[in-house]
Amino acid sequence: MLEPAHRNRLKVVLVSPRNPLNIGAVARAMSNFGFDHLRVVNPYQLAFREARSAVGASELLARAEEFGAVAEAVADCALVVGTSGIGGRELRHPVRRLEKGARLIRRALGRQRVALLFGSEKFGLSNEDLSHCHWLLHIPTRAEHESMNLGQAVAVCLYELVRDPAIAERQSARARRATAADLERLTALLLEALSRSGYLNPTTAASTTLKTRRLVRRLDLSARDAEILMGMLRQIIWKLAGNADVQG
Amino acid sequence: MLEPAHRNRLKVVLVSPRNPLNIGAVARAMSNFGFDHLRVVNPYQLAFREARSAVGASELLARAEEFGAVAEAVADCALVVGTSGIGGRELRHPVRRLEKGARLIRRALGRQRVALLFGSEKFGLSNEDLSHCHWLLHIPTRAEHESMNLGQAVAVCLYELVRDPAIAERQSARARRATAADLERLTALLLEALSRSGYLNPTTAASTTLKTRRLVRRLDLSARDAEILMGMLRQIIWKLAGNADVQG
Repeated sequence: MLEPAHRNRLKVVLVSPRNPLNIGAVARAMSNFGFDHLRVVNPYQLAFREARSAVGASELLARAEEFGAVAEAVADCALVVGTSGIGGRELRHPVRRLEKGARLIRRALGRQRVALLFGSEKFGLSNEDLSHCHWLLHIPTRAEHESMNLGQAVAVCLYELVRDPAIAERQSARARRATAADLERLTALLLEALSRSGYLNPTTAASTTLKTRRLVRRLDLSARDAEILMGMLRQIIWKLAGNADVQG
Repeated sequence: MLEPAHRNRLKVVLVSPRNPLNIGAVARAMSNFGFDHLRVVNPYQLAFREARSAVGASELLARAEEFGAVAEAVADCALVVGTSGIGGRELRHPVRRLEKGARLIRRALGRQRVALLFGSEKFGLSNEDLSHCHWLLHIPTRAEHESMNLGQAVAVCLYELVRDPAIAERQSARARRATAADLERLTALLLEALSRSGYLNPTTAASTTLKTRRLVRRLDLSARDAEILMGMLRQIIWKLAGNADVQG
């Protein structure tokens, strides 16, 4: 997990964005994942104004800083990372897949500001933009369809920055399981219902009992669900026993 | 990594989507990450038609299946997972964070079909929709702003399904480093340039030599970059030596 002070050191830099919906989507993903600093280089002015004035446009978008050139937008950052679809372009930079690159960025954010650059929707980052980068980040998309939507690419990168690998390993917290005694009581109630309903055949009753007991164990019930099922069975048995009206 | 045959077993199910741009964005993220099966339950018809007919709408979107109810859309799946912003709702389901939940989904995809449900942009999944789910997936967004854009939420979930944890651990492939002999030749050329330019002071020359040698080592140069720098220095030295015209 990236602590808030470290998240504050990340500057998301959009270079020449053209679509106000995309700028808004980037701001939303930043807010979802707790990143606060948006920088915009040379935006299509109409798009930037429209994004800022959209209904529900965030505080974050209102505070976005505007720059005339990439060099200015990254000047205070000690690490500058570009994103790239890779594609046909001849890359003169080291390229790191997101899983690995995010780890290096997290480490850098522990002590310095980092700029993460995203290019325009249509052309991505130019070779001039890329020349300001120390290395490039690659989201592992399919070779047949590499190019991601801008807002989605930002969301995926920021998610990888905040994801907590320890959680993948953790055992799920589970509701308290039913005890063997609970399960045996449930089995008895189920057998009684089966018997009263005529499901149990005297010649196979012993084997049906064993089958039923195993089936109840396979259900992997929580204590609470075992109680609910027993309540249902008690009502069914009461009805099967010949009581005309079901209790409320 | 999830192999293609296993990716094919995932059914992305959108319940009551209302915005054609979001439906298109979901289809794009699926294509980016190699998932092919989109199902749509009870869509706002105009949105669905508009999304399908949009310029550049994909084959995937054209093949999307439409259903009238969640039960039908998930009928052939052995595991049904809902996504939820959690929020204020009282949840009666086990909730797993994406890092952990994706691992369970990957495992399930190894042998059976899995449905991953996303609710409408405005309301998310209803309690009725959720009752069809075995458990819920939670993307680790900030409590103050949990609700993600639909297309971004799908992109983040699919990314987590295809991400390769081994890559985070892997050493980056690096260009071949300069050898000590390369670095010593470079140091000698740099010192010669410094000497010819008057930077070297006779009384401190010995200590400057050591400082320069250490500096060159700190640059962590590739063999190729060391060659480029040596070429630059040779030209500078040639000029400093008093040659009027620089060679081409």
